[in-house]
Amino acid sequence: MAKIFSPNFIFKRLLSNKIQSQKYVLTKQFQGEPKKSDFQIVEETLPDLRDGEILTEAEYLSVDPYMRAYMIAYKLPTDMIGGQLAKVIQSRNEKFPVGSYVTGAFGWRTHTVVNPNIWNALDFLPLTTIPDVSPHPISLGLGLLGMPGNTAYFGLKEICKPKEGETIVITGAAGAVGSHVGQIGKILGCRVIGFAGSDDKCEYLEKELGFDRAFNYKTSNVSAALKEGAPNRVDCYFDNVGGEISTKIMANMNKFGRVAVCGSISSYNDPKLPKVTIVQPTIVFKQLKVEGFLVSRWVDRWDEGINMNLKWLNEGKLKYQEKVYHGFENMVDALVGMLRGENIGKAVVKVK
Amino acid sequence: MAKIFSPNFIFKRLLSNKIQSQKYVLTKQFQGEPKKSDFQIVEETLPDLRDGEILTEAEYLSVDPYMRAYMIAYKLPTDMIGGQLAKVIQSRNEKFPVGSYVTGAFGWRTHTVVNPNIWNALDFLPLTTIPDVSPHPISLGLGLLGMPGNTAYFGLKEICKPKEGETIVITGAAGAVGSHVGQIGKILGCRVIGFAGSDDKCEYLEKELGFDRAFNYKTSNVSAALKEGAPNRVDCYFDNVGGEISTKIMANMNKFGRVAVCGSISSYNDPKLPKVTIVQPTIVFKQLKVEGFLVSRWVDRWDEGINMNLKWLNEGKLKYQEKVYHGFENMVDALVGMLRGENIGKAVVKVK
Repeated sequence: MAKIFSPNFIFKRLLSNKIQSQKYVLTKQFQGEPKKSDFQIVEETLPDLRDGEILTEAEYLSVDPYMRAYMIAYKLPTDMIGGQLAKVIQSRNEKFPVGSYVTGAFGWRTHTVVNPNIWNALDFLPLTTIPDVSPHPISLGLGLLGMPGNTAYFGLKEICKPKEGETIVITGAAGAVGSHVGQIGKILGCRVIGFAGSDDKCEYLEKELGFDRAFNYKTSNVSAALKEGAPNRVDCYFDNVGGEISTKIMANMNKFGRVAVCGSISSYNDPKLPKVTIVQPTIVFKQLKVEGFLVSRWVDRWDEGINMNLKWLNEGKLKYQEKVYHGFENMVDALVGMLRGENIGKAVVKVK
Repeated sequence: MAKIFSPNFIFKRLLSNKIQSQKYVLTKQFQGEPKKSDFQIVEETLPDLRDGEILTEAEYLSVDPYMRAYMIAYKLPTDMIGGQLAKVIQSRNEKFPVGSYVTGAFGWRTHTVVNPNIWNALDFLPLTTIPDVSPHPISLGLGLLGMPGNTAYFGLKEICKPKEGETIVITGAAGAVGSHVGQIGKILGCRVIGFAGSDDKCEYLEKELGFDRAFNYKTSNVSAALKEGAPNRVDCYFDNVGGEISTKIMANMNKFGRVAVCGSISSYNDPKLPKVTIVQPTIVFKQLKVEGFLVSRWVDRWDEGINMNLKWLNEGKLKYQEKVYHGFENMVDALVGMLRGENIGKAVVKVK
């Protein structure tokens, strides 16, 4: 990763009123795991604010699975995409006073000038203010009280449509979205089974989050685990990973089961899509509904999700865990670590 | 295929008032293509009619793709399943007078005693009377005016939900269901693209049935064909075959596209399910809805489908073609031929 700051970068900042932002520019398409050498960190002088605009300073940057998958659609070089939690440090917009916090898909950058009134970046993450979340860390605005939280809330409720007493299976169950989905499943009175990538994660899901069962997909026989964990078979499958495990889980579903396809992290690092046992015969004969979704479709109901998750958090019904990486220079390590499954719960990067 | 008639079978029929029925019993699970040696033809003496019952004599038997897929769920030996069009030859049920025609899932058998009031066989094919379809052949009760016709009607309308001007792609497009779906698509004002297994079939679809384009999937590049045939990409995919072609078609769909998974004939003869390129990443990022269905779910609306298809038929908006095999003893040949794609339109067997 070449830093192409001008040599007198710091000196210039001291002399100028202009704000210098640093940002990641993707210059090589990912091959396998993302690498630091796929990026350059570039400095950029930000313009003075015009009416309606705000200047924000990132406090936490998010790393999420979609980042690995989306970049293929961009022509390079391009600014790296992503959500961040930022503090308003200058403002010419009275709805966003200095000192307030916002989330927005500003990308991997330290400072941003933006007009919230005409904001139209990645359509899956609106520019929103963050409510008072104390005593919880404000970084929840990137997780339980942000995009992943709404992904869990709307994806489960609107795509899986679980009924009390039904059985929900979740893959990637210890991640930001999966761990949240399982807890909502319990709130709704369902039996919740999770698949995760380590025994520690499974123990956390069962003992801390109240999953009925959790299985290490790396060491367990998935079909046998489902027979044991889901004796009434599976009504809802919240799929974060795709791959062969999805075929096996769908084979254990009940008639008219619902599959919410939220992500497909198992194949994001593959140079070409892998082959797995076909799902169509199962989809036909069990009459399954398999629906992919991006949380953007509920952007008009964004606050409903945030407020419900906040209410459940305050009632002690939702728990969370964060994996906090440190330093703007370590974004790629954080992204790779998250894709490898290093995190339990949400992975974020504290900028400084 | 061992015929285990008693030696004096015909002689006994002449002497007795009792009706002797012949039926196919599956005695070996299919391995690859069905074989005559997987069955025995058994004779059975039918009981006298009780109140409410009717005695029917099969005129046409249906062969359909599901037959290959379903039998694995049965413990052998078991009577072979299937729909038939039969004439009522004795009746103690005034709703079903002698001389009327019915369809029902009576299986591969020549004669049947049944009480239509308590009929509860395969739940995808109700016992219904057949309206006057002249000048068309009554065998349409097994095709365009029966289960395949309703599969096309409800599957397209309720699962794909096409809007005028949208593009529909159909695999198995020259089969009973596929050829019907395409014509309804044209009635609804859509662009209709079919994939079928021979140039003759494609010519029939374009020239006789009004498909906008039809491609021979055995000789064409599917992705290139879609670029040419579906310049606005694909909104609805009516999937009769599954397999790799489904992955390719889904990759060419528009955001919020709908896939009706009606069948998966490409894999029915395989001893184990094949592996194909995964569909989940496409399902997520295009937010596709992929739903499997059996026509049984609309059994309460059965007449709606029949009547609409009959109306379109009488208006000249629906055309059909039948492949008629002859002879009860040739059921297996007919089933295998249909699975190989020998037929254009519906495959039926004229019993005698």
